[in-house]
Amino acid sequence: MSAMVEPVSGGQRINHENYYSELTQGAHAYFDLGAFEFEMGETLPGAKLAYKTYGTLNRARDNAILFPHMYSGTSASMEPFIGVGRPLDPQKYFIVLPGQFGNGFSSSPSNTPAPFDRARFPKVTIGDDVRAQYRLVTEQFKIDKLQLVLGWSMGAEQTYEWAVRYPERVLRAALFGGTAKTTPHNYLSVCLHEEAIRSDPAWNGGDYRDPSAVKAGLTLHAHVFSVLGVCPAFYKKEAWRIFGSTSLEEFIQNFWEAWFLPMDPNNLLCMAWKWRHGDVSRLFGGDLRKTLAQIHAKTYVMPFANDMLFPVEDCAAEQAMIAGSKLRVINSLWAHFAMLCVDPADQQQIDRNLAELLATPV
Amino acid sequence: MSAMVEPVSGGQRINHENYYSELTQGAHAYFDLGAFEFEMGETLPGAKLAYKTYGTLNRARDNAILFPHMYSGTSASMEPFIGVGRPLDPQKYFIVLPGQFGNGFSSSPSNTPAPFDRARFPKVTIGDDVRAQYRLVTEQFKIDKLQLVLGWSMGAEQTYEWAVRYPERVLRAALFGGTAKTTPHNYLSVCLHEEAIRSDPAWNGGDYRDPSAVKAGLTLHAHVFSVLGVCPAFYKKEAWRIFGSTSLEEFIQNFWEAWFLPMDPNNLLCMAWKWRHGDVSRLFGGDLRKTLAQIHAKTYVMPFANDMLFPVEDCAAEQAMIAGSKLRVINSLWAHFAMLCVDPADQQQIDRNLAELLATPV
Repeated sequence: MSAMVEPVSGGQRINHENYYSELTQGAHAYFDLGAFEFEMGETLPGAKLAYKTYGTLNRARDNAILFPHMYSGTSASMEPFIGVGRPLDPQKYFIVLPGQFGNGFSSSPSNTPAPFDRARFPKVTIGDDVRAQYRLVTEQFKIDKLQLVLGWSMGAEQTYEWAVRYPERVLRAALFGGTAKTTPHNYLSVCLHEEAIRSDPAWNGGDYRDPSAVKAGLTLHAHVFSVLGVCPAFYKKEAWRIFGSTSLEEFIQNFWEAWFLPMDPNNLLCMAWKWRHGDVSRLFGGDLRKTLAQIHAKTYVMPFANDMLFPVEDCAAEQAMIAGSKLRVINSLWAHFAMLCVDPADQQQIDRNLAELLATPV
Repeated sequence: MSAMVEPVSGGQRINHENYYSELTQGAHAYFDLGAFEFEMGETLPGAKLAYKTYGTLNRARDNAILFPHMYSGTSASMEPFIGVGRPLDPQKYFIVLPGQFGNGFSSSPSNTPAPFDRARFPKVTIGDDVRAQYRLVTEQFKIDKLQLVLGWSMGAEQTYEWAVRYPERVLRAALFGGTAKTTPHNYLSVCLHEEAIRSDPAWNGGDYRDPSAVKAGLTLHAHVFSVLGVCPAFYKKEAWRIFGSTSLEEFIQNFWEAWFLPMDPNNLLCMAWKWRHGDVSRLFGGDLRKTLAQIHAKTYVMPFANDMLFPVEDCAAEQAMIAGSKLRVINSLWAHFAMLCVDPADQQQIDRNLAELLATPV
């Protein structure tokens, strides 16, 4: 069972009180962005980017890997992929886990003072995340080139943005279950997640008394994920048993609800809006083919079989536009959520592909 | 464009005021079931089964076809499949379109007096629908054998129930986009539809002021269907343009919302509960293989390619348990909603298969 989906951390149950705490998510560093101008036009004073690092940046500053995280995650979500002797080896690489805007550690609706608090937090784009990360990478760490940028879902969106926006700096790119341009069906799916939260009268336009008051909305949001986050065969074959649940009801509660209920609704809505507006082609007048042709990185596109949010065919269509790229389908009944590696076989497939990509000369 | 999804009927916009009216859905006949005991244990006094018929029952009483309808439909929903010179030819067959319980014409939460009104309406099963239809067929029409029973989605659930429960009476069975036993993923999807309606505070435990007051819940319910009712490629390829919409937003409004918003929330909840509890195997101790082995009918199982609610593989797994049956996949980007035949090519595929099945000697 993955530590990522454990509802208990350090003996303490994760809830609204402690979710966005270092007790639960570990220590973060913070990069001061100053007054940060978002793509949509608003400027946030005192913006900050939370991050974690593993390993040591070498003298040549050429052993860095950047691993942004997915929707609803934090930098800590990516930690289970790091390990001595594994592809993301902290004895070899300097691994940076940047927190996206809206994740509750970087500037977010939940941690920003008025007048930019809660639903008044600026609209953020994937491009904003990546421009902030670029400053962290180049100003704070003076890194010229990244050995690898990788990510899952919204992390893949950020990886695409990196590979297109800063092609000379990204030597390799690994994209798990995500797209460069959000498809209309994916857009509607994310809208559904947002509407689920907003359906709760306690959401109150974002001015809820307390995140825990929005329990009904967060629960419905979790239930949307229970339908779209895996795949029909997952439930038919009871693949959830590997998580340790003894019934479907228990799994819904201990996996889906336990994952999402401790989060802040406005934070989720901030990230969801960013997710569904993801589109690297805006950088080149809406021409996706031309945009993806900018990529210099050695690229592995790795969709999940049976992914209902990011179908293989959608990911493959983008991969076909990236010169020299490879398509590697991760086969798992966990579909979009294979990245949580609850099933060790998923971790093995992912690690094997990452090892191969990192071993590829550039 | 199909008349079934037109928000305007006879020059009048369909809304909560007129949806459950003969002005909108045409004339129905009613079969008096008397005090009807439902499988779950409750008895409804004065229960009635609404239905429509086309064509004439011949002297031998052996030219009858039964065509129950899907979730959210009425008997009128199946009318577009009936036509002179087509497989369901009223000059050749006597075609009965029974209304399922909860559809607003047969006994339903919306038309039943206290103490069984609204959310207090008894829990209904697919077996209840079919037992009621059996009485209509045998008592009212003295029909011994049905040339064909067919249905889409919940209509397929009813068809399976017919074929298993009364195997000697069903000569042919055609099952479009539906299963004999609801899968866990399908179950969760239907739960989501129900939760969407109940998320609206105006739903008020079923005691809403007026169905139109539950607009937010019905809208969210429609949006769940917008994600699960078709498939990702449907939106990517803008297959909705054939409906006449000029933008995605317009399609969501004029197709999905226009379809569901005029309906009664308690009626939808009654049918949804029935849908997700569909399971013919309960008739033989939970043994699905043994249950499906009861079928005598010449059977065509016809899933829709890319159906997110009833995936082809789930339908095919059941088909494989039915001796002598055939699997015919209907290829359409409209996926589960191909049955509405907005695209004439879908109607052609369906008609071709029905013609072949009806021409098969039994």
